[in-house]
Amino acid sequence: MTFSLHPDFDGGSAFVADLKLSQVRLHLDARFPWLILIPRVDAVRDLDDLDADHRAMLMDEIVRASAAVRALGEAWGRPVEKTNVAALGNVTPQLHVHVIGRRADDEAWPKPVWGQGAPRAYDASRRLQSLETLRRALAPSS
Amino acid sequence: MTFSLHPDFDGGSAFVADLKLSQVRLHLDARFPWLILIPRVDAVRDLDDLDADHRAMLMDEIVRASAAVRALGEAWGRPVEKTNVAALGNVTPQLHVHVIGRRADDEAWPKPVWGQGAPRAYDASRRLQSLETLRRALAPSS
Repeated sequence: MTFSLHPDFDGGSAFVADLKLSQVRLHLDARFPWLILIPRVDAVRDLDDLDADHRAMLMDEIVRASAAVRALGEAWGRPVEKTNVAALGNVTPQLHVHVIGRRADDEAWPKPVWGQGAPRAYDASRRLQSLETLRRALAPSS
Repeated sequence: MTFSLHPDFDGGSAFVADLKLSQVRLHLDARFPWLILIPRVDAVRDLDDLDADHRAMLMDEIVRASAAVRALGEAWGRPVEKTNVAALGNVTPQLHVHVIGRRADDEAWPKPVWGQGAPRAYDASRRLQSLETLRRALAPSS
């Protein structure tokens, strides 16, 4: 399958890993442990544009991403209390799924995160450590 | 499995149908064709609390709900241009998935719908017709 990443993802997120279906990216807002899954299938915008096999793979990868987001919360000393999972894509038309770790003391709680306050940049060392934590959590158990 | 619906759903939504896993409810904001899927499993809050079989069933039911939301948009003469699918649940702690039909001319576009403006009530006949449209769209094809 051909695939190219929409340019909207370039500045605001960092590559984490390629799973079987999706590219996993870290959304660069250090207020929340926040992953984005982008199925590597061209020209799909909505969940129901994916065929059944790809949908099943995506659900598995959402669960893996949820575990990685929980691991990142632990690494930050702020365990995730709730996950938010959403395929919105009104602005960026390439199908992508947000997997976000939430806590009752986070800056947007209990609202959804979109449009709440300003993103906070990662400093270099926190970004590097976070990517390592996520890659370890996403690695296939062997 | 035992199941009881969280009381938060009572006032703001209407029963549409019980699918194999989920109860489908119409969220009573007439600005958007908006369904909520509530898996009939007790004590689950996050997607990754469901076991693999239930997750697969839920993904299938999300696709069926998407088709029903598209049918409702057609019935209203406002075809859905984008679906938004989200499991948030920060306020109501029972696992539920929103399936919302969006258009570039809707009142919240391109923002997510939550917290945007005031809900619009259904009048009685529109509500009845909408429930009929949805039940027809969700009926198993035979």
